[in-house]
Amino acid sequence: MPLSANNPDRTSWLHVGKNSDFPIQNIPFGVFLTRDDIITIGTRIGDTAIDLGALHQLGYFDGIPLTEDIFLQDTLNDFIADGRKTWRAVRNRIAQIFDSNNTALKNNIKHKERVCFRLDEIEMQLPVQIGDYTDFYSSIEHATNVGTMFRDPDNALLPNWLHIPVGYHGRSSSIIPSGIPVHRPQGQTLPNGATDPVFGPSKLIDFELEMAFITTDANDLGEPIPVSEAEEYIFGLVLFNDWSARDIQKWEYVPLGPFLAKNFASSMSPWIVTLDALEPFKVESPKPIKPVLPYLQSKGKKSYDINLEVAIRPKDAKETIVSKSNFKYMYWNMSQQLAHHTVNGCPVNSGDMMGSGTISGPTPDSYGSMLELTWRGEKPIKMKDGTERKFINDYDTVIMRGHCEKDGTRIGFGEVSTQLLPIYNPKKKK
Amino acid sequence: MPLSANNPDRTSWLHVGKNSDFPIQNIPFGVFLTRDDIITIGTRIGDTAIDLGALHQLGYFDGIPLTEDIFLQDTLNDFIADGRKTWRAVRNRIAQIFDSNNTALKNNIKHKERVCFRLDEIEMQLPVQIGDYTDFYSSIEHATNVGTMFRDPDNALLPNWLHIPVGYHGRSSSIIPSGIPVHRPQGQTLPNGATDPVFGPSKLIDFELEMAFITTDANDLGEPIPVSEAEEYIFGLVLFNDWSARDIQKWEYVPLGPFLAKNFASSMSPWIVTLDALEPFKVESPKPIKPVLPYLQSKGKKSYDINLEVAIRPKDAKETIVSKSNFKYMYWNMSQQLAHHTVNGCPVNSGDMMGSGTISGPTPDSYGSMLELTWRGEKPIKMKDGTERKFINDYDTVIMRGHCEKDGTRIGFGEVSTQLLPIYNPKKKK
Repeated sequence: MPLSANNPDRTSWLHVGKNSDFPIQNIPFGVFLTRDDIITIGTRIGDTAIDLGALHQLGYFDGIPLTEDIFLQDTLNDFIADGRKTWRAVRNRIAQIFDSNNTALKNNIKHKERVCFRLDEIEMQLPVQIGDYTDFYSSIEHATNVGTMFRDPDNALLPNWLHIPVGYHGRSSSIIPSGIPVHRPQGQTLPNGATDPVFGPSKLIDFELEMAFITTDANDLGEPIPVSEAEEYIFGLVLFNDWSARDIQKWEYVPLGPFLAKNFASSMSPWIVTLDALEPFKVESPKPIKPVLPYLQSKGKKSYDINLEVAIRPKDAKETIVSKSNFKYMYWNMSQQLAHHTVNGCPVNSGDMMGSGTISGPTPDSYGSMLELTWRGEKPIKMKDGTERKFINDYDTVIMRGHCEKDGTRIGFGEVSTQLLPIYNPKKKK
Repeated sequence: MPLSANNPDRTSWLHVGKNSDFPIQNIPFGVFLTRDDIITIGTRIGDTAIDLGALHQLGYFDGIPLTEDIFLQDTLNDFIADGRKTWRAVRNRIAQIFDSNNTALKNNIKHKERVCFRLDEIEMQLPVQIGDYTDFYSSIEHATNVGTMFRDPDNALLPNWLHIPVGYHGRSSSIIPSGIPVHRPQGQTLPNGATDPVFGPSKLIDFELEMAFITTDANDLGEPIPVSEAEEYIFGLVLFNDWSARDIQKWEYVPLGPFLAKNFASSMSPWIVTLDALEPFKVESPKPIKPVLPYLQSKGKKSYDINLEVAIRPKDAKETIVSKSNFKYMYWNMSQQLAHHTVNGCPVNSGDMMGSGTISGPTPDSYGSMLELTWRGEKPIKMKDGTERKFINDYDTVIMRGHCEKDGTRIGFGEVSTQLLPIYNPKKKK
């Protein structure tokens, strides 16, 4: 099926700024509350949010087999479960409706009023009910940096790393959309030289620059997904900040992996950019250092060239960009991750989310966490306001952005922005 | 509120066999398909399944604030979210309706026909939509056995174990009810002495004898649950078989914990026995070997005396009981687990599930896994049919049972029974 929505020559009758992440070639999907406090599924062109529920009620999707209430829901799960053919038909239709040459909606003021919102009239929600969330560990630079710091610089990568897209299960319940603040967690840590742990606020709060993909219903219990088919089951991608408490992590993580150090919060950008929209930005994955087993051998371009950056904005101050990385650095691609995840028959459902793991690049300014950027705090980062950061301070806001750019077309993700608040105070509870 | 449902003198006009797990003092909750292919929430007395949706429609719950469709759902999540006061009111009312002295339903043949089913007329379903599943590692005997086998007999317990109810996130999507078979998973393993892994069927499939508790909506993001309040948020318990592929686990689990070795399947018993029903069987927890931090100090009886057993039934043969253990052996109790899980502000929702970890007792015949029972295969178990088992064979069925008994009252869980099938064959897919 031709992806007419990707036509680079198309323009929209809606205003799209020069550096917008959301030209008519993007058409991401999200969920928002409208000014009338109604929850709906929508998309975005330029700085206009578009109510797909209203568009559907007004008949603009006629001819596409959709249930009546498919967009009048508080999550995208059912729409995602409809499968790629449906996503494509809807995305292509949206491109037609808002094409500069199509005046049907443009000239219908009543319809336009029901369908189009300014961004300050809406409130973005978590776009999916996340059934299961898995986090991978697929950046060789990140795994090498962590191995060098915490284990043995000469054997930084563990023996399984080049054979397995290492991953673990995370917590769905604490995944929040951009804009929701997070409290500094408390927990157990082991002071240097001590034998018994102490309880208190984590002193080493960190971000992890990640991307995450959202799946559709993929397989039954017992049934593996071949690596060659994996992308058929990926709906789209978001920016993902996997908040981490390094001191809690260090004490708790042997032998079963990170737990409370991670599950206090993870933040995601609210617009899911479809894999279809990212198609023009596909690139080759890094060459494997060791041959991988057949079930992990992916062919063709399965990585994506997505520029990423992280900024820290102290309270009442300007932001400082602390890292610039790229999704294409991932050693293991999403097809390999999904093939590995299901090779034992583990079922993957609509709305499941899989994080890439911290995306560190080859140079020190491209590392995806404060742990690596400041090398465990040994090299603090100078901020524009004159202060220094080893890790994240209370009231800092961490902002991650991402976009692709090629031949004059820019497709972006907007941002995931999260403020860190001091520890939770039960007396302040409403 | 008095738990009149627990009155040990009460009898039911429904037949209850002498050794039944389901006297009128139990009143567990589950979800089943009726003979008319309608899905409903129900309970069980003796060998009679009771349709709570029908009871509610017929007015038997009048006076209890319940929404009209609360029992006409395919999961218990909404009912569990209604909170403990509602669970108690419903359970007490059920006890009254089926009390020997109450003839209202007993003598109403039309009503009885709509409400009561024989077990062979129904099909038990997964009782909850499990949002997040966490597995703990709270048996000191199990952790010591594993540490002795795989690390250092002199330092079998890791330094954090006596301070933290160690746990990790598991996969919700592969949790299945009793009766659904499981395929032997395939995956990567590292042969002895090799440096590169091979791909193929796991050769070391094991069960883990566990119990798991189901929670209600407990806290907001950021808000810890005090250990003293934790039980308020626990709806009930089930038997839980945490299937494990030991060879896959060994190769994959460093540094982020078990993944594909566990997420191919976990099985649960379908009737959730409420914490209220288990109240009479509360016992003291084991004395802590080291003092624990204040947020983990639980007071009073927070453990439960539940007899557990595991049987293996080879194809076309009689079962052999291979382990007898008890839930009271757990070093960390459920209140401590839930307080720990939320001390960093991790939100816990209705339908979340938390496994105990393998429940091994102090003697070799009370170990909760084949890994421990056969000591890594060194001491095979003799089966009644003359064969031996080191781990689980294709077509074996693993059956776990559990019950409490005190002063003539027996409250049980029924069983979780799961057959292991050979590896998945894509050609056989419907």
